[in-house]
Amino acid sequence: MTYENYAETVLDELGHTLLSVSDETASDFVNLIDGAKEIFCAGAGRSGFQIRGFAMRLMHMGRQSYVVGETCTPNITSDGVLVICSGSGSTKSLVNHAQKAREVGARIALITINPESPIAEMADVVVEISAPSPKSAKEGQIRSIQPMGSLFEQSEGLFLDCAIMMLMEKHHMDSDTMFGRHANME
Amino acid sequence: MTYENYAETVLDELGHTLLSVSDETASDFVNLIDGAKEIFCAGAGRSGFQIRGFAMRLMHMGRQSYVVGETCTPNITSDGVLVICSGSGSTKSLVNHAQKAREVGARIALITINPESPIAEMADVVVEISAPSPKSAKEGQIRSIQPMGSLFEQSEGLFLDCAIMMLMEKHHMDSDTMFGRHANME
Amino acid sequence: MTYENYAETVLDELGHTLLSVSDETASDFVNLIDGAKEIFCAGAGRSGFQIRGFAMRLMHMGRQSYVVGETCTPNITSDGVLVICSGSGSTKSLVNHAQKAREVGARIALITINPESPIAEMADVVVEISAPSPKSAKEGQIRSIQPMGSLFEQSEGLFLDCAIMMLMEKHHMDSDTMFGRHANME
Amino acid sequence: MTYENYAETVLDELGHTLLSVSDETASDFVNLIDGAKEIFCAGAGRSGFQIRGFAMRLMHMGRQSYVVGETCTPNITSDGVLVICSGSGSTKSLVNHAQKAREVGARIALITINPESPIAEMADVVVEISAPSPKSAKEGQIRSIQPMGSLFEQSEGLFLDCAIMMLMEKHHMDSDTMFGRHANME
Repeated sequence: MTYENYAETVLDELGHTLLSVSDETASDFVNLIDGAKEIFCAGAGRSGFQIRGFAMRLMHMGRQSYVVGETCTPNITSDGVLVICSGSGSTKSLVNHAQKAREVGARIALITINPESPIAEMADVVVEISAPSPKSAKEGQIRSIQPMGSLFEQSEGLFLDCAIMMLMEKHHMDSDTMFGRHANME
Repeated sequence: MTYENYAETVLDELGHTLLSVSDETASDFVNLIDGAKEIFCAGAGRSGFQIRGFAMRLMHMGRQSYVVGETCTPNITSDGVLVICSGSGSTKSLVNHAQKAREVGARIALITINPESPIAEMADVVVEISAPSPKSAKEGQIRSIQPMGSLFEQSEGLFLDCAIMMLMEKHHMDSDTMFGRHANME
Repeated sequence: MTYENYAETVLDELGHTLLSVSDETASDFVNLIDGAKEIFCAGAGRSGFQIRGFAMRLMHMGRQSYVVGETCTPNITSDGVLVICSGSGSTKSLVNHAQKAREVGARIALITINPESPIAEMADVVVEISAPSPKSAKEGQIRSIQPMGSLFEQSEGLFLDCAIMMLMEKHHMDSDTMFGRHANME
Repeated sequence: MTYENYAETVLDELGHTLLSVSDETASDFVNLIDGAKEIFCAGAGRSGFQIRGFAMRLMHMGRQSYVVGETCTPNITSDGVLVICSGSGSTKSLVNHAQKAREVGARIALITINPESPIAEMADVVVEISAPSPKSAKEGQIRSIQPMGSLFEQSEGLFLDCAIMMLMEKHHMDSDTMFGRHANME
């Protein structure tokens, strides 16, 4: 296949996965984030990279956001929300984080392929993205040509970027006002 | 705007940016990567997250890949290629890296909005993605509704994932063979 | 207290903790590292920073070392050794890593305050550093003036640096030969 | 040499380097940190690991601290202080950061071997640690048996931990009060 073929197929797959999330679920997710004093973001592997992009944009908006595992991330409390990206919804370290968040009374949002997973059971909002890995696709589901969890990881990144725009609209922010806190040492 | 509106607009924008890269340029990029013994990946901010996803997939494929700035990343030599993601093509720290790579005889690939930037001048392959920030869009270019560099960052991530599939095809690999080296502690 | 008072007290405390490790234990640790094809390093919080310094020095020596959780870290196999720094020896995520390492037949080394912890039970070599936190010190043990786990973290860093010198001696390396692979982009 | 020999030599070397810093310089450093609203920490390689330990302890104390290059680190402003660890005082990326900090009116503290370096010239407080690398030691200076910058990196870590205790004393904090914000997800 040519690059153009690959690009078109990926875009087509993303059309399915992104539009598999309803407006209502997206709003629930955005409202949960918006109501939190502190937002803790967690994910493993390539999902971890996507959610870091979300944590960074929240910081650009002036929100108190953190990535679990980074140096200056404090303890989560009942004022916080924990946002987890996990395709399986059962990554061990992330299950531990969710349990701890529950324990202290924090809220939890999960972005996942699997809405019946251990983390989903603990979550206040579950954003299901219908992006099964090539192997686990069931009948009626999209059968991605992409390896491993790529389609899910791309979809969660784009979903989170849409959520940022919904938050910006809510707070009447634009690209210029966000540049205010963009890192000047990098 | 609703979530659905945002998602559709983002997908539409990505259709423009991804297909602004030619098959030929994509092949040049893939061949440069494929010919290198060691692949060093560098990017700042959200571009840095996208290119880490690429470095990880290369590792999954059994390639010797590194992220500049991580703990066990060694020196680059003439056997290496440095892959840089930089919208502006002029981020200071990345210009320094490119100069060092040049100095030791390594090859350089750049993914950028700006093909006339300092790093582009040093690069062997320049992948131009036509994804200007809302402010800098010129006539005839897409005027993204997304804040800051979001459209570029999304596009580079998707471009790199297409490049991975082109590499997989070249080496007759599939999703299963790649799981071999997927981290089992995370 | 003046800075000088603090510095002298810290040095005095380190004299106790470093010399609480026997030559024999140190040799066992060094031999375990030396015999491994791949060395995976793991630790949380400030212990994580100390062990990253160790992973970096191993890379400088030309060894194949990795930090668990970084981008290009592959799966551990029976050829690998997992080196864990954990004061309590029971940090959840690190217990999970140790279990996984055991499962695939890898060896485990632990540096800890607590030789009767869950990870210690799984470890091939346990380096006990007698550096209890101020609160948990028992009779006969040093009662540090330093907060939290500082004394342990300092001690493990210095212990690991001694281990590096023992490895260098074993392989007739000196500071100059090690600069070979020092990162040239940073 | 045995482990015990190495440990004793390292401790002896640290006795020289730590006590090469005067009470007055240490106080100047502590006061600069204490007066800042936001504290940005930067360092490359193993120096970077030591200063991350400092950034983490500042967070434990309830201070607003950041590591340059991590996800949620915002821009530095005139209310901030930039703390740099750099043996040479001339690491390119860190020189760039110092220039940017100067530009916005932030204060700068440098911990270094070289008080006549480019960063030292821009710094408000320079903490000189007399820990030359084996190769660069001049007459009258300690000639470390340790490779590369190990002695400097150890010394800066211990110096920073002493600074933390001086800050704790100033604010009547103890180990217990600091555990308040210790990460509960790790």
